[in-house]
Parts: sequence; C-alpha cells; structure tokens
Amino acid sequence: MFEFTLDRTTGAARAGTLALPHGTVHTPAFMPVGTHGVVRGLSAADVRRTGAQIILGNTYHLHLRPGEEVVQAMGGLHRFTTWDRPMLTDSGGFQVFSLEGLRRISEGGVEFRSHIHGTPRSLTPERAMEIQWDLGADIAMAFDHVVPGQASHDLAREGMERTLRWLDRCRERHAALVQDGQAGGRADGPLPHGAEPPGSVLPDRLTVRPPDRPPACPPAPQALWPIIQGGTHDDLRLASLEGTLQRGPWTGIAIGGLSVGEPKPVMHRVLEQLAPALPPEVPRYLMGVGFPADLLEGIARGVDLFDCVAATRNGRHGSAWVTTGRVNVRGAALKGSTEPLDPECDCETCTTYPRGYLRHLFMVDDMLGLRLVSIHNIRFLVRLGEQARARILDGTFEGWSREWLRRHAGGTSPSLRSG
Amino acid sequence: MFEFTLDRTTGAARAGTLALPHGTVHTPAFMPVGTHGVVRGLSAADVRRTGAQIILGNTYHLHLRPGEEVVQAMGGLHRFTTWDRPMLTDSGGFQVFSLEGLRRISEGGVEFRSHIHGTPRSLTPERAMEIQWDLGADIAMAFDHVVPGQASHDLAREGMERTLRWLDRCRERHAALVQDGQAGGRADGPLPHGAEPPGSVLPDRLTVRPPDRPPACPPAPQALWPIIQGGTHDDLRLASLEGTLQRGPWTGIAIGGLSVGEPKPVMHRVLEQLAPALPPEVPRYLMGVGFPADLLEGIARGVDLFDCVAATRNGRHGSAWVTTGRVNVRGAALKGSTEPLDPECDCETCTTYPRGYLRHLFMVDDMLGLRLVSIHNIRFLVRLGEQARARILDGTFEGWSREWLRRHAGGTSPSLRSG
Repeated sequence: MFEFTLDRTTGAARAGTLALPHGTVHTPAFMPVGTHGVVRGLSAADVRRTGAQIILGNTYHLHLRPGEEVVQAMGGLHRFTTWDRPMLTDSGGFQVFSLEGLRRISEGGVEFRSHIHGTPRSLTPERAMEIQWDLGADIAMAFDHVVPGQASHDLAREGMERTLRWLDRCRERHAALVQDGQAGGRADGPLPHGAEPPGSVLPDRLTVRPPDRPPACPPAPQALWPIIQGGTHDDLRLASLEGTLQRGPWTGIAIGGLSVGEPKPVMHRVLEQLAPALPPEVPRYLMGVGFPADLLEGIARGVDLFDCVAATRNGRHGSAWVTTGRVNVRGAALKGSTEPLDPECDCETCTTYPRGYLRHLFMVDDMLGLRLVSIHNIRFLVRLGEQARARILDGTFEGWSREWLRRHAGGTSPSLRSG
Repeated sequence: MFEFTLDRTTGAARAGTLALPHGTVHTPAFMPVGTHGVVRGLSAADVRRTGAQIILGNTYHLHLRPGEEVVQAMGGLHRFTTWDRPMLTDSGGFQVFSLEGLRRISEGGVEFRSHIHGTPRSLTPERAMEIQWDLGADIAMAFDHVVPGQASHDLAREGMERTLRWLDRCRERHAALVQDGQAGGRADGPLPHGAEPPGSVLPDRLTVRPPDRPPACPPAPQALWPIIQGGTHDDLRLASLEGTLQRGPWTGIAIGGLSVGEPKPVMHRVLEQLAPALPPEVPRYLMGVGFPADLLEGIARGVDLFDCVAATRNGRHGSAWVTTGRVNVRGAALKGSTEPLDPECDCETCTTYPRGYLRHLFMVDDMLGLRLVSIHNIRFLVRLGEQARARILDGTFEGWSREWLRRHAGGTSPSLRSG
C-alpha cells in the first residue's frame, strides 16, 4: 500500500513509482497545494486535467475551516473535495510557526491564536496526528519545529532536536490511531472513507448521492512521514537524518526548513549532503519547493516529490511560466495575440485560449483568467516532472536538464517582456 | 441560415427551432450573459456543459475592452472567446442609457463617458451596427432608446418613436455592411471568421493553432433584430410593434424596456397585449428577463428567448435556485451536508459536489464556489427551458407550469432557509 519502487537512477536523479491507497504516483512529481481543501479556484476536474497525481492539503487551514470533525463526518478529505487520487496533509507546523506574535512554543507544543477566529488554540504532536487522521489523507506529516532560514546553529539545533522528540510522540499517537482504526473500535480516528458514522447524529445525510459522484474510497491505513530539520547546518542535517532513521522504518522522508530565506546554493549544498545518506528505497519529499528551476535542481540532487504554492499564486497574479522564461499575462504585447500562452505546452489553457483572450480576462478582472493561468502553471510543473522522469528513464537527464535550465533562464523573448 | 420553425404551440406557449450560422437553438431557451466576452468566471466549456445553446455578449463592454477592432483582428467574437455556438450581441443602448449623469442623448445618438477610461465616446445607430458587425455575432440588436420602467406616456412615446427612427438608420447601415461583407470588399465590416485579415499588419499572428482549438467559423451573414419599446403603455407598445413590422421583414423581434422597475403584473399585461399581434413565424426575445418564475410566465405568454445576469450575479453571492425555492449557500444548515445543492438537478455542481463543500468554498472565499453556484443557476434556467419545451411538445405545459411555480414559490425548506 505504501510501496516505492526505484525504476531507474541517472546520477543522483531518480525515477520511481509510489503506490498509495488512492493510487500510484510516478516520480519525480510536483504536488499542487490545496490549501483549504481546494487548489485555489480550481475544481478537482481542473486539477485532474493537469495530470497532477497527488495534491497536498493544509492541516492548519482545514482545522480552522471547516474543522476536521466536519471533514470526517462528510467521509474524509477525498469525499469532501471529490479528489479521488492520492493526497498528503502537512502537519500544520510550518503554518503555526509562521504566526509571528500569535504563537508560544514549548516542549508540549504550540499555543496560537486562530488568524480567522482570534480564539486560542493549541497544536501538539498528538493533536496534529489526530487531526490528520480525521482528515484521512494517504500520507500524514510529522509535527515539526521549523526555524527561519538564517537560524543560528543553536536555534537550528534546538528545533532539530525537538523535532526528533516530537517525532517519537507523533509515531506513538499515529500507531495507536492506525491500530484503533484497523480494530474498528476507534474513538477519534477517521471513518472508513464513505461509511456511515456509527450511531450518526446526522440521519438525513449521505442519503442522496448521484451515481456519478466519485466512488467511496476504500478503508485504508495512513502513512506517517518524518521531516528532516537542521537549518542550513550540515552537521545538524545529518544528525537529524540519523535520529530520524533510528526511529524508522519510514515509507517516505521529507526535508523541511528549506526555501525559507536561505540562498539557493545553500539549499543545493544541504540536498547534496543528505542525498548519499538517505536510504535509496524511500521516496524523498522536499517541502515548499518550488519554481521550475528548483524542481530540476532538486531532481538532480535526488528529490522525488515537491510542493509549492507559487504555481497558483503566480497564476493569480497573471505571471505564467513558459519554456523560455516567464510571461506577464497583463503585458501590452499580448493584446490581440492569437498565439497560445506557451506554444510548447499541452495544457487546457494553451490548447484552447489565445493569449489575447487571457490578457483581456485580466484587464476586465474576470476570475476565469486567474484560473486559466493557474492551470497552465500547474501543468507546467507537472509536465516538467513527467519530462524529467522520461529523461531519467532513458538516461539523458543531465544534458537535457542543463539545456532546459539554460533556455528557461535565457528569459523572456522581447515581444513578451512584461509591459 | 436564420430560419425559425414553430414545432408546436400549447395555448400561447411556443416550442420552436431557430437555425443560426453557428448552430441551432431549440426554444424556449435561456441565454447566459457573457458581459465581457466571458460568462463571469466560467470557461466556454463550463457554459457548454450547462446545455446553453446561445450566449449574449455586451457591445458596450466589448467596445470599451478590448475594443471591437481587437476582437475583429483575432477572428471575431467566436474565435476570441472560443464559444463555437450561436451568439447574440446587444446594441449597447441599455448600457449607455443606464450611465446616469455620464451621457447626453440627442437625435443623432448618445454621447457618454467611458466608465472605465473616463474618455468621451459616442454611440449612434450606425456605430452600434459597425461595432456589432466587427464583433461578428450571429445576431445583432438594433440601437434603441430605453426609458425607465415608470416613464410617463410622453417620455415613453419619445423613446419609442426615436427607436423607430433609429431602426431605419440601423437597418440601412447593417444592410450596407452585409452587402460589403458578401462582396468581400468591406472596409470596416467583420472578417469572414477565421480568415487572415487582408494585408494584415499582424503577420506573426494566427500562426500557431493547436489542432484541438475550435474550428474556424464559416463566413456568415449576421441578422439584425429590432426592439419593441413603449414603456408600460399598451397603445405605445402596439404602435412600436406596428412601426417595427412596417420596416420588416425580420428574422426575430425583441421586446425591450421591461423588467426595468415596473410591477410584474404590468410586464405580464404588456406581453399579453403583444402576443396576438406578433407574427407567429418570428422568434420573440424578451430582453433582460429573468428569474425562474419569469421564464415560465414569459413562456406562457409566447416568449421564445430570454437573457438575464441574475443567474451568475446570484451565483456569485451564493444564492442558488432550487426546485423548491432558493438556497443561501453560506447558510449554517449546509455545514457538513453531503447532499447535493438541488437533489433534482443534473448540473456538474449538483452531480459532483456535496453542499457542505460548496458552503466551505464560500466560507474560505475561494472563487471555485462562485463558479460552481453560477454553473448550477445557469443550468437551472437552461433546464427549465428544456423542460418547458418538452411540456409544450406533449401538450401539458399549462398544468405542469402551474405546479412548478407553486412548488418553487412554496419557498425554501426549513432546513435550508438562509442562516
């Protein structure tokens, strides 16, 4: 159910196949971010058409709205969102640590104020497990202590060591949830997806279900993946990995606390240090990365999975990635153009709409524009993963990647430069 | 090309088939409004899936952004929007007359200030024809003088008589455009859709066109439809119709200046007065109407076509029509509900998403919510047209319509009342 097969490696780059309860993920792969149980502005069908194999949900946001108990009562995150492929939830750690001034950290966990309701809340390793269990994604992430990119050795060490202690608590609570769930007598774990809540207080629900709804998801266990911390300090990163492996085995390992303000070469160095020490038979997930170039640089350093909000955030601002760089969709050069946004792209937007229409949608502030550029940007990263995989499989990744990065960095053709 | 076949009548209600250059429209039918060349927030594919057979574009808005010359250079409104079915453009009259304080009316036309650019502009019967010709919809509307719903007999008479004088000018200019277009030597008419502009200054355009773009539309003439005015005054309405018919023949006739503030029974009375005097072999288009009940009331009084922004405007505000009334999608009663928005509806939204998810999308302000409820509301009106047509064809329209209106007016079930 959580099997990873390494299909081929080319240098440090890896092509693999990850089997999860809701389907298979061919890696390397980009995961679009569905912050609130929705990839901003996109339907599940939109996301499916981008070729995305797995999406990420934000535990912090879903805990606040609508609340994991609501998602659980509706049959879990897959039923709730109608996304029927694999799904991963983060632990909420990154979000609560980002709530500067609104949070207090102790060994127990994090007390914070909801940025929506203003009410005091707390998140502990145990609660993070329980919430994610209720949400019911294929993969849950451990609750980690994230430090800023420029954190000192002392601060990074503190976060790294606490992350390991919290990992013990996560593992214990998660194992109990899995056991209770499998015994069928769980008190606060998730429903088997699609089943009626036992003794439900909601007797009139789940009664009407048109036949073309996604089928009920099978009852399935959930994997827990740990997160490597240690800031930008190689010794701490390796210690974090060692401590994590001692607590294993794991079906996947994440690398957190990167792309949080440190220079790119530093991120690359950390990845290069970790790569040979990571067990090859386990998929590696680089959290919160990336932009197109970051994907290729990460893949070259052995990363299998990525997530990032840049695709949709840039899409909403009218900034589109294209093979030759970047296009500002509001740019005057696009006015009246009947060409596709990216002539080399096979996404729904590029194969349907002329650039001049996309620009018009931004000029009249129609939300269809944001959606179409988000679809393009997601497809751009998903396709980059597909292309990288094909090049790893045929052994030509390195040369192809170098040429791709050169073209992409070459920038925007003059006629498309942001106007 | 602009043929209307009356398939059956039941009382005053009519089922017909209208053949247009871009396809066939089975009536009675609701036209979604694509204000800026886009049905707010929806892709052409979204609208197609609602079963809509024809959409409306706003000449005023498209003239301001992106400008008819841009649309024309891109191959016309069908190519621009990728909507490959029939399309109708209004004349801009209603919009410029609504620009209180920003417009000055004379016999020549209307001088106004762009609500976007602040620059002075003018719209005359001739310009309205030229702009619509450049946009290239199947049906262009005459430029009319609209008066408020509560207009006095004198004011309504002035508007009605001017509308007839302007109709002469519209007809003359439109006939010249059609003739020039057919001769192939038009100076300012639309391109045959999909053709390269002769001597184009845009040599690098239209060069890249992926194969699954909608095919080029065939060169086609454009119909001009007149608009009946006369406010709420029966004698003026009949005089308007008489004057309009004298200037015919027409392939369609619109009824304008209703649903602009007058009580519903007054609108119904005007329709009842006009129905027997309208030529039965010509389709009748009631402009700017309606809500679900308005559709059935209009159909009962012989109307064949409708348009209204309420479906999408209400959708954006989270107000959904359902068979039994109306649902506020933000309502607390929807929290956690796994039922469809309207259990009797076959739209994409109702067959895919649980109500509890739709509510969540509105609570987290995700634009997908606006889109999904707009899709439902449009499908609701499109389907109402389909249902009415089936009932007219089998002779059971009247009883069915009465029962439908009774259920719909019965209001919202307690559990769904706006919270």
